[in-house]
Amino acid sequence: MQTKKIEAGIDQYIDSIRKDYEANLKAFVDIPSVSADPAHKKDIEKMAEAALNLLKQFGAKAEIIKTNGNPVVYGYFENSAKSPTLTIYNHLDVQPADANEWQNPPFSLTIKDDLYKGRGSTDDKGPALAALYASKYVYDQGLPLNIKFIWELEEEIGSPNFLSFLKRNKEKFKTNSILVSDTIWISKDKPSIAYGLRGMSCVLVKLRTGKKDVHSGTTGGVARNPIGELSQLITDCYDAKTGEVKIPGFYDDVLPVSEQELDNMGKAGFSLDHFKKAHELMAVRVEEPLEAIKRIWVKPTLEVHGIVGGYTGPGVKTIVPHQAEAKISMRLVPNQKPDKIFKLFSEFVKAKCPDAEVIEDGSLGPFIGSCKDKYNQAAAAAIKNTFHCEPVFTREGGSIGAVVSMDEVLKVPIVFIGLSLPEHGYHAINEHFDWQQAKGGIKLFADYFTKVQKL
Amino acid sequence: MQTKKIEAGIDQYIDSIRKDYEANLKAFVDIPSVSADPAHKKDIEKMAEAALNLLKQFGAKAEIIKTNGNPVVYGYFENSAKSPTLTIYNHLDVQPADANEWQNPPFSLTIKDDLYKGRGSTDDKGPALAALYASKYVYDQGLPLNIKFIWELEEEIGSPNFLSFLKRNKEKFKTNSILVSDTIWISKDKPSIAYGLRGMSCVLVKLRTGKKDVHSGTTGGVARNPIGELSQLITDCYDAKTGEVKIPGFYDDVLPVSEQELDNMGKAGFSLDHFKKAHELMAVRVEEPLEAIKRIWVKPTLEVHGIVGGYTGPGVKTIVPHQAEAKISMRLVPNQKPDKIFKLFSEFVKAKCPDAEVIEDGSLGPFIGSCKDKYNQAAAAAIKNTFHCEPVFTREGGSIGAVVSMDEVLKVPIVFIGLSLPEHGYHAINEHFDWQQAKGGIKLFADYFTKVQKL
Repeated sequence: MQTKKIEAGIDQYIDSIRKDYEANLKAFVDIPSVSADPAHKKDIEKMAEAALNLLKQFGAKAEIIKTNGNPVVYGYFENSAKSPTLTIYNHLDVQPADANEWQNPPFSLTIKDDLYKGRGSTDDKGPALAALYASKYVYDQGLPLNIKFIWELEEEIGSPNFLSFLKRNKEKFKTNSILVSDTIWISKDKPSIAYGLRGMSCVLVKLRTGKKDVHSGTTGGVARNPIGELSQLITDCYDAKTGEVKIPGFYDDVLPVSEQELDNMGKAGFSLDHFKKAHELMAVRVEEPLEAIKRIWVKPTLEVHGIVGGYTGPGVKTIVPHQAEAKISMRLVPNQKPDKIFKLFSEFVKAKCPDAEVIEDGSLGPFIGSCKDKYNQAAAAAIKNTFHCEPVFTREGGSIGAVVSMDEVLKVPIVFIGLSLPEHGYHAINEHFDWQQAKGGIKLFADYFTKVQKL
Repeated sequence: MQTKKIEAGIDQYIDSIRKDYEANLKAFVDIPSVSADPAHKKDIEKMAEAALNLLKQFGAKAEIIKTNGNPVVYGYFENSAKSPTLTIYNHLDVQPADANEWQNPPFSLTIKDDLYKGRGSTDDKGPALAALYASKYVYDQGLPLNIKFIWELEEEIGSPNFLSFLKRNKEKFKTNSILVSDTIWISKDKPSIAYGLRGMSCVLVKLRTGKKDVHSGTTGGVARNPIGELSQLITDCYDAKTGEVKIPGFYDDVLPVSEQELDNMGKAGFSLDHFKKAHELMAVRVEEPLEAIKRIWVKPTLEVHGIVGGYTGPGVKTIVPHQAEAKISMRLVPNQKPDKIFKLFSEFVKAKCPDAEVIEDGSLGPFIGSCKDKYNQAAAAAIKNTFHCEPVFTREGGSIGAVVSMDEVLKVPIVFIGLSLPEHGYHAINEHFDWQQAKGGIKLFADYFTKVQKL
């Protein structure tokens, strides 16, 4: 009865809240809650306050819970102690953004027709708000389901304080299942439900060979060159052409992929052309779709995110630089352990270049769940019901540190229903979200809630 | 008679002009005449005007001569058509300087006791002024010598327009010999006279593999990594640990060093400890002094001056970058040809990484002269006479593009009498000059002028 009422009113509800959704998304995106940059510490606090106020305004109980790092915003639509509980995880911190590179200002939401442009619009503020609107709707309709929100503020730096936070607040977050909305579809017509995530080990490698840059004429040939040696080190670590990691033992613990998973991957509808177009890549390392999908979902990587050393201004400055550094991460798959991988990396680098400094810059484990449980099946049914296409079960190439912690502490099924598309530009310039995904997402979540309530 | 008068009065003259010398050095250093950065175009013009005015104020004929690039300032103390002519070359453009890295502001001369701190103080404004003061003195004393000044304003970018400028003004610069004051002693107690310079081929290598940075989770493994590939390219080009260039044919035209040169090198008094200390190097590639000196004076190099790509801000940003670039130069020795070397480099890079872009960023040939002619002998005698120590004849590791052009067009002996010391920091932070070298230099130049006049 109630389910029918919810179904009947949802379209009208969504139409009625569009302007409100957009205003709240703008308020959220306009706060540059960049967790990687200590200069944005105040914005993180501002973001937490704004989120708290919105939850309260929506009629939820809400509080800001301190951690050893950035706070977590907790919200709760309480129906009844007898009703089952669903916990929804999103994060409200964002990746850095260089305004010079963007078409629109990254930290001021630009709305153009159905498009919402700005840093964090799709990762993960837009999906967070879609889940909130759907929750408020079913709550107001009296659906016998308790809904809790966990809005994290340091997901983009690997959730370093989330595990200890969760352990301390274990009782508060008792739940029957968890919904995470922070993943990406294969394409607009190919929704996906992730059941696996890669982990990550992040490092900063610094090499200093002198106290100042010196003249390359008067010292060149004798002075060491930290850029040259760092380049050699990177080349020792992996073959950039193929992506193959050359650190001994790196692949030892990689879980082999089952025949069934391989079969699913082949059927996932992954198109390399679409992938290249969505990510604006001129060329890729492989041309075979199944091999490409394996590399993203089930194989570990080593990537250099940034490098800098010496003179990088205009024109020529003929110096031998005195230092250089590179930011590197390794994406890990089950059953690789971040600690072991960091140790392998660190020892390898030290053996190749003893005076290179290796600084650990965050780590998180990979995750693999089941896609056969009733929650995932309910999610698949809800997607089919609202987006009218069959979702595929995938393993995601990205990492969400909080998931690993929730799995460890809360020990309940975790379901990933993302709303983002490849072209939305996770972590890229000109990130955006769109109303079609938000609208469909609110409907999908509401449908999923009615299904979960019955499980 | 006149020589004796000049000798007798020089110390008093030098004492009397110290404050004036310092004021003029400050006026010159305070103009940030950075030739590498187009943003300093106006400062280059300002520098030319200031130099012109100073020459006129000193009683010299002077003019600013336009070239296809930065102007050249020309000055002339004319004694008589019958007198021999000496032409003095210096440059008044400087290397870039990042104020954040300096103890004192680079573009505001700080005078502390005998030290003159600021960009360009030793390279090459301080020596230029020392030569000017010495010239004015002998001119006022009536020494029958014509003295011409060539003050270049794009030496630091490889003198790209100097050859064509000189060819057009060949008649104006008729001279019996040339004095270049832009080189560095072995140490404070070891003056040196260079008779060779390295040449240079500068390149910018850019690699672009996408149109924007993308998420290293959703694309990592498949997307190409331009930092990784550029690192590999640098490693293909040379072994940074040893300095050995791996580009086939690179060493083919290197002139073997004669037994006598090797013998001279061994006696040059080069100390690796002093070298490391003066340049603040923590470690070097070789520990044998003769091998070190060979690497700087008579062997070619490949050096990476700067590299940048991806995210270099605070913290972690897990992206696969879309571009990276490196500034590279190769210092060349006789008989390597910059054009041939650039072609070898360019073809090698293209073969290893076809979509890397190789941009030529200036080139200049190596130089080797004689150290046995009467001008060099007069220089050695003047140094001994004023600094009371025996100079050594060296080949310099640096490059002065203008020298190669003057040799080609003017075809007269070129003598290098530098005043700079290794610890003065050519091209480095906290560059400085000092009154002892300026004072001794003025005396030395005056003495050299009286000797040259008699040749």
